[in-house]
Amino acid sequence: MKISIVGSGAVGLFYGALLQRSGHEVAYLMRSDLEVARRDGIRVVQADGEFRLRDASVFGETSEIGVCDLVVVALKATSNEALADLLPPLVGKGTRLLTLQNGLGNDRLLAELFPENKVFGGLCFVCLNRISPAVVENFMPGSISIGPREAGDAEEAQELVELFRAAGVKTRFEPNLQLVQWKKLVWNVPFNGLTVAAGGVCTDAIVESPELLEESKALMGEIIAGANALGFGFEQSFIDYQVKITIPMGAYRPSSMIDYVEGRPVEVEAIWGEPLRQAKALGVAMPKLELLYALLKRLCG
Amino acid sequence: MKISIVGSGAVGLFYGALLQRSGHEVAYLMRSDLEVARRDGIRVVQADGEFRLRDASVFGETSEIGVCDLVVVALKATSNEALADLLPPLVGKGTRLLTLQNGLGNDRLLAELFPENKVFGGLCFVCLNRISPAVVENFMPGSISIGPREAGDAEEAQELVELFRAAGVKTRFEPNLQLVQWKKLVWNVPFNGLTVAAGGVCTDAIVESPELLEESKALMGEIIAGANALGFGFEQSFIDYQVKITIPMGAYRPSSMIDYVEGRPVEVEAIWGEPLRQAKALGVAMPKLELLYALLKRLCG
Repeated sequence: MKISIVGSGAVGLFYGALLQRSGHEVAYLMRSDLEVARRDGIRVVQADGEFRLRDASVFGETSEIGVCDLVVVALKATSNEALADLLPPLVGKGTRLLTLQNGLGNDRLLAELFPENKVFGGLCFVCLNRISPAVVENFMPGSISIGPREAGDAEEAQELVELFRAAGVKTRFEPNLQLVQWKKLVWNVPFNGLTVAAGGVCTDAIVESPELLEESKALMGEIIAGANALGFGFEQSFIDYQVKITIPMGAYRPSSMIDYVEGRPVEVEAIWGEPLRQAKALGVAMPKLELLYALLKRLCG
Repeated sequence: MKISIVGSGAVGLFYGALLQRSGHEVAYLMRSDLEVARRDGIRVVQADGEFRLRDASVFGETSEIGVCDLVVVALKATSNEALADLLPPLVGKGTRLLTLQNGLGNDRLLAELFPENKVFGGLCFVCLNRISPAVVENFMPGSISIGPREAGDAEEAQELVELFRAAGVKTRFEPNLQLVQWKKLVWNVPFNGLTVAAGGVCTDAIVESPELLEESKALMGEIIAGANALGFGFEQSFIDYQVKITIPMGAYRPSSMIDYVEGRPVEVEAIWGEPLRQAKALGVAMPKLELLYALLKRLCG
């Protein structure tokens, strides 16, 4: 299968390399890492060793890649406005699009750009770090949840699940993409958000402050109220579960917090703005998310 | 009248100097500015000129000052725990105490420490800046609102109003001290708070961001709900008035924001913690203030 990886940051490098290693023809679209990747290939560092793909096909323009069977969008959502120019050379009749981006609104954008093509979304539950150009580090294998944007495309989504499983990725099929997107927001909204707004701190600073821990739970409650207004049946116990899994993470640096302290764009609209707007349209009040969003928009603007 | 000024930052220097100039015996308790003030006196720089008091009586210990007729507390509320040690040498039978501190809880503390003495509060609406040791700058004359902690002490509060008026300060008598404290919080909670939480910005950054402006109004709404649960009749139009007076301030730096960016303690409990606790006790929900308080406690901790 011919696969293009649009956006070769940590996520794009990692999953592109795994797909390439499992036998697919993978083309990476790169900007800053292009020269290094051309010379040295792509390197993946894992807890149990590392591998290097010397023959990675890397490109600076999508027109050099041409039409693919699968386009994996792994750009940061803050660069979404570039997609209308970047993607057309890659997309023909029958090309499938898979966004691995954070937050809400990414699959909708792809469907708007390519109404004739099938769109899928994957939520990555994984810790990845691009430690130097074309080198990605991954210490916990993690998992992906993949689902179709349209319920009728479940079968093709299952094929994508098999594609990633064959590449060695623990992959779940999710019949409802929106549900799993909101599920991920339950963690991302408070922990990515409060670690930025509290000045660029790690998750331990949130769970160890009685006040910030309460606020993180209240923010989760708002997201759950939004999700449940969309018809999902999140229970309050899901909040306690999020806290339970976050405590052992220790001094964990959420991706948005890393972006913030390193001066890179933060996905403010995808993670905080879009759920707020969707919930408002449904008549769900999110007073704390409103304040957090307003602060993040300024802090990361 | 023998007056001691406890805490000779911008507020203490300024009002102490005005009271001394109007003929009172004023003793200043100082720490860092002590040597300079002993050598050069106290200097007040105003828009229409400046004056220097070469013979200022400055002290490093309250035991050197002795019992006063009036004790003016102008320490930052973050140093309140020092008052139990500092004040006793100054307070005898009939000594009156006046706190010029920000926020809630300061007059209650004085009343707890000296249950036999009369306690008053003054809210300063003024822009002051201690520009170097023992030198304070004041460009807008501003005003003070003085009121008694106990309604029965209105007559003595009026005497304090006259004392400040005679010193050239525009002074209002406030029969209800609590009301004017909450009134000041309507501005301080959003503008001192959001300028810190948004990363150390000026008030123009708040009023020019549609989202932060909405959040500042919503925070004012919460404070007004708290105040009205205490029996005050704040109207919603008071919110629009606050915005109206803040816009022409331009790039104004609220005192807490200056403290924050300069690494000094911020009065988090007096301005945000205490109103939140009082409102909670009254059953008033303040979801946005809760989040702001939790963030400020961490940011300024």
